[in-house]
Amino acid sequence: MIKATIYVTIKRGVLDPQGNAVQGALHSMGFDEVGSVRIGKYMELELNTDNRAEADNRVKAMCEKLLANTVIEDYRFELQ
Amino acid sequence: MIKATIYVTIKRGVLDPQGNAVQGALHSMGFDEVGSVRIGKYMELELNTDNRAEADNRVKAMCEKLLANTVIEDYRFELQ
Repeated sequence: MIKATIYVTIKRGVLDPQGNAVQGALHSMGFDEVGSVRIGKYMELELNTDNRAEADNRVKAMCEKLLANTVIEDYRFELQ
Repeated sequence: MIKATIYVTIKRGVLDPQGNAVQGALHSMGFDEVGSVRIGKYMELELNTDNRAEADNRVKAMCEKLLANTVIEDYRFELQ
């Protein structure tokens, strides 16, 4: 079994309304030192395979096809 | 300036409907090797301070008060 950890982040230059909302909330709570806030997704997948090279290709395909919107998002992943 | 990277994950034992939906979608796309899927949040904050000890305390307070629902979610963070 291989565990994949995937990080999906909004590309630089793309607006992040969720991050802006969190930034505003933190400021209103007195956390004035907070500058930019960017929010992404963090996913943990268990893969029923022991072939790391194949898992690498398969996770890449999952990200491209479903897990990330590559027009506005970047992704990276680690296999354990 | 200190950059904080925060990971918020659903606690073990708490249902993750978003993860289940993604698992179902991956299976229907032919990624049959996918076992459990857990989805969390990934946040990058910029802090306008250079005091790491203070930043550590402040980010912890932000997580407890706003960024994580500690009843059902765990959080961890790194400062850079």
